Amino acid sequence: MPAIYPAYADLGGRVGPDKARGRRLRLDDVVTLRQLDSVLDGHPNPVLGVPFFDAATGSLGQGASVGAGLALAARLDGTARRVYVIIGDGESREGQVWEAVDFIADNKLTNCTLIFNSNAQGQSDYVSAQQSADALTAKLAAYGLEPVVIDGHDIDQIDRALNRDGNGRPVAVVARTVKGWGSSELQNGNWHGKPLPQKDVQGALRDLDLKLTEGGLPDPTTIKWLPPKPVGKAKSSAGPIRLGDPDFQKLLGEHPLPAVRKMLDGFRKGKLATRRVYGLALAELGRLSDRVVALDGDVKNSTFAEWFAEMFPERYFECRIAEQNMVSAAAGLAAAGKIPFVSTFGKFLARATDQIEMAIISDANVKLCGSHSGTTLGADGPSQMSLPDVAYFRSYGQRNVPLGTKTTQGHQKVRPADAACPVLVPADAVATWKLVELMANHTGPCYMRTLRPDTPLLYKPTEKFALGGHKVVRRGKHLVIAANGYMVFEALKAAEALAKNKIEATVVDCYCLPLNAAPVLRLAARCGKLILTVEDNYNGGLGSELAEAAAAEGKSSARVRVASLAVRRVPKSGSTPDEMLAMCGIDAAAIARQGRKLVGRK
Amino acid sequence: MPAIYPAYADLGGRVGPDKARGRRLRLDDVVTLRQLDSVLDGHPNPVLGVPFFDAATGSLGQGASVGAGLALAARLDGTARRVYVIIGDGESREGQVWEAVDFIADNKLTNCTLIFNSNAQGQSDYVSAQQSADALTAKLAAYGLEPVVIDGHDIDQIDRALNRDGNGRPVAVVARTVKGWGSSELQNGNWHGKPLPQKDVQGALRDLDLKLTEGGLPDPTTIKWLPPKPVGKAKSSAGPIRLGDPDFQKLLGEHPLPAVRKMLDGFRKGKLATRRVYGLALAELGRLSDRVVALDGDVKNSTFAEWFAEMFPERYFECRIAEQNMVSAAAGLAAAGKIPFVSTFGKFLARATDQIEMAIISDANVKLCGSHSGTTLGADGPSQMSLPDVAYFRSYGQRNVPLGTKTTQGHQKVRPADAACPVLVPADAVATWKLVELMANHTGPCYMRTLRPDTPLLYKPTEKFALGGHKVVRRGKHLVIAANGYMVFEALKAAEALAKNKIEATVVDCYCLPLNAAPVLRLAARCGKLILTVEDNYNGGLGSELAEAAAAEGKSSARVRVASLAVRRVPKSGSTPDEMLAMCGIDAAAIARQGRKLVGRK
Repeated sequence: MPAIYPAYADLGGRVGPDKARGRRLRLDDVVTLRQLDSVLDGHPNPVLGVPFFDAATGSLGQGASVGAGLALAARLDGTARRVYVIIGDGESREGQVWEAVDFIADNKLTNCTLIFNSNAQGQSDYVSAQQSADALTAKLAAYGLEPVVIDGHDIDQIDRALNRDGNGRPVAVVARTVKGWGSSELQNGNWHGKPLPQKDVQGALRDLDLKLTEGGLPDPTTIKWLPPKPVGKAKSSAGPIRLGDPDFQKLLGEHPLPAVRKMLDGFRKGKLATRRVYGLALAELGRLSDRVVALDGDVKNSTFAEWFAEMFPERYFECRIAEQNMVSAAAGLAAAGKIPFVSTFGKFLARATDQIEMAIISDANVKLCGSHSGTTLGADGPSQMSLPDVAYFRSYGQRNVPLGTKTTQGHQKVRPADAACPVLVPADAVATWKLVELMANHTGPCYMRTLRPDTPLLYKPTEKFALGGHKVVRRGKHLVIAANGYMVFEALKAAEALAKNKIEATVVDCYCLPLNAAPVLRLAARCGKLILTVEDNYNGGLGSELAEAAAAEGKSSARVRVASLAVRRVPKSGSTPDEMLAMCGIDAAAIARQGRKLVGRK
Repeated sequence: MPAIYPAYADLGGRVGPDKARGRRLRLDDVVTLRQLDSVLDGHPNPVLGVPFFDAATGSLGQGASVGAGLALAARLDGTARRVYVIIGDGESREGQVWEAVDFIADNKLTNCTLIFNSNAQGQSDYVSAQQSADALTAKLAAYGLEPVVIDGHDIDQIDRALNRDGNGRPVAVVARTVKGWGSSELQNGNWHGKPLPQKDVQGALRDLDLKLTEGGLPDPTTIKWLPPKPVGKAKSSAGPIRLGDPDFQKLLGEHPLPAVRKMLDGFRKGKLATRRVYGLALAELGRLSDRVVALDGDVKNSTFAEWFAEMFPERYFECRIAEQNMVSAAAGLAAAGKIPFVSTFGKFLARATDQIEMAIISDANVKLCGSHSGTTLGADGPSQMSLPDVAYFRSYGQRNVPLGTKTTQGHQKVRPADAACPVLVPADAVATWKLVELMANHTGPCYMRTLRPDTPLLYKPTEKFALGGHKVVRRGKHLVIAANGYMVFEALKAAEALAKNKIEATVVDCYCLPLNAAPVLRLAARCGKLILTVEDNYNGGLGSELAEAAAAEGKSSARVRVASLAVRRVPKSGSTPDEMLAMCGIDAAAIARQGRKLVGRK
């Protein structure tokens, strides 16, 4: 996007929510990229005012299908419109891309040209040889398209390829390119999503000017394909796996991996991201039990499954950008007695919703971790945020009860220990550590949300966590604020603000859904009979859980009022978690405002 | 399954929830297939006591991935276990199958053998030539596997193929077969999921005995591949599309398609399945506006999109078994100004959850229809039932608001007209007709659930329906029963039963989520301050919607009690809707029981 937006501005492209309020994009708009009040989101979206794109982008593997739809419409309309779709080689691992290729071949959509950008690099590593330029070319031919391989930096070759006649077959271009092409600095190493340091910018610009007169691709033999996987063996060990109480100082300071030891400085400031603790706990589980295996979809450097991958390469399975296969493969590993931990961005797990449902129907012993959950992800925009996940997973009731055992009556609430797929939303490092241990020892599917930003330490290392449990983290008599994950800290900030208005709030961390609601309602009965729930996800999570319990209460005199704050609009990019939470009306200020209203002191 | 279960019994296979309660499967168990108290579900599930299968089956395209997981585990365990996965040729359109093939190639899983059953027939039609035996063979070779094409009815060829050494490459078998092989009756026509009439059974058995001595495949040139698609043109027409009030007598009786006219007899009994009305209304929309296009995933004969396909072939796009591509292609068609209606089983739309989310983020004008929703589907089991869908779609709040327009505060409820993706759950034919019209004229994504079984007519043809609306279908002063879809009729039956206990129930059809809850709460305030919600889906739908509204109510004296019935366990197969609803505790008897309890008359 940082390349496309300025080019669009240069070409006189217009932006705006509709024609009446449209205007030309200016070059100086580009520096507002990803900011809250910018038209330029982290990933472009026509609704937000970038009509150049026909559909919101950012979730991989969907473009070829959208392009096919546009091409079908062009044919129906009898227009000569041609559709071009650029697809990453790593992205082409998504099965949907090949569904689209079948569809384009079926419909002979010669007005739709797919362009595979083959730079051989993914986010966390080189792509698989299954996605090399040669492999892509062979596949496209087998699918009945007309593949054309070009030097993707050569304007003449691009021009010829885009004008090529496929003799009735849709043309697909495999463009060999180099990531960071033209800059000697950027051509080395992985610069995925990272800007060049200011000091190197002038040099890079000089390099690029030079390239305009040169061209040409480097030798493809320089591509460092991944070495073959070590074929390891792991014996199954039975019994519980005990991580023990965490001493993060020691865990980080004495860790075998230098990358983990480097985190110690940051940790001394008293903060640690839950996703990092997930990675730390997962690696420790791997050390304690060889039943533990891990799978990730080319984001192991973001979910921090990479530490497990480095320490136990024979038990780590890199699934690339193909989440459906990843979840079902984990179900297979579980069926064979392993304890598979599956991680990717929570949003990308949504790619495998049906596979997750089938695993839940099977009561497969899979552990799902969705990182970068919620709006606190910030600048990348809604295509990367996991927001309907909590409602989705909470909807499941009790496990499929085997025949011959007592079945639950429909109207009874489900006991958390019997839940078909408990949802775990840890707020801090200790909670994450303890809940990862709980996941490993719970038999059956479960789902954990981890966060991108660092969060402060909240709990003592000896704190205990259980399915359906909650923690009272602050006491006050006027109302209960119930939250989980990142929102526990916003709730605590709001409680501080409310204290200045002489409103004393109890703050409860509801780290697990389903929740044993009764004790929370009893607590609220002594706190003004008021609960305000706060969650960084769409509707249908914690707020619904407590509202359902309160509304079902028999004695109207005992009934507690439940007001809820959640993400109630499809968000856009913003620079910081604070900005995101404010946009969605769930930041500390909004919580405090709502708290004052509830207690009747506006 | 009707073939595998008896073979398993013959081989002495065991069934049961665990070893202690296991027993041998008997041949006479087989006649209990799909019954409520049978261990043999419509699709097998290890949790239900069929340990022969390592994971629940029934949702297509996941087996190869599960097999890959099992093969990885076997390698880790150092065992010589080999894994065989049978995949349908129609099924091989699912992108996940090709994600799995990449994964198997990456990991050199020579202990995992994929067997593609190539009979060239899908559920609704012949498969695409993209899934022919030749095409599959070319693809498998391009993916780096060792393909072997065999006559799938020749035992020697099967034996040789399964023992073949791929020289380091995993072997994949393409087995050419004939659907209904061996029976002259079954070899003609499409017998997908249909039993042979009793009168033809003896003849078929004789044919099969004969075949044992014969063998051999018919001439492949007899396969009737689909004719090329007519290339049509459609001019965009603006403005609303009015279906008008339905006269089903006339609509059916005078319909151009004989298949529709044949429904008239059934309709005279006063019942019509909502999925049939969806098909009827869709075809009528197609007649009225050439902006309307339709997409379906090889189940058009179940969703009844087939009538549109027959009448407007140039505007119908058969997407085969590839739901992700289908949803994104619809987003592309919408971006080009078409009004795409996308249909498949609700459960299979879950395959495209992330694609749906991206369409919602784009505010794409796509119309989603999930048929066979809820447990009333019955015998096919949970792998075909759409149950988390309502919680999922309800979770979305307001649309992504373009810059420069007023944003909603987080704590405000979303107005139904501003909802990012309204959920429509019609109970009868009239409601379906009117709500399909509403979908066509609403700009933005929306989702409709249709039902497999017939439901009685409930509304007059002149009845009006609106986003967020509800209908009072029976009045009584003691409590409100709120329901939607099939459950409206169960609620009415329960109200009849309650009337015998002198309990008068108001029944409200809440056909749209989000719902304007305030009038329902006001109604309940005059009906014993009691609401009982009933829904045929997992938790998080109507019950949550009304509980949230009730629990948020400020004055405790005005607060209404909300109790909810929903599907609170992962179900299994049962023979009839009644059995299914009873198992899940949401049938009329359970509703009446709960109603009596709520008004204090147990």
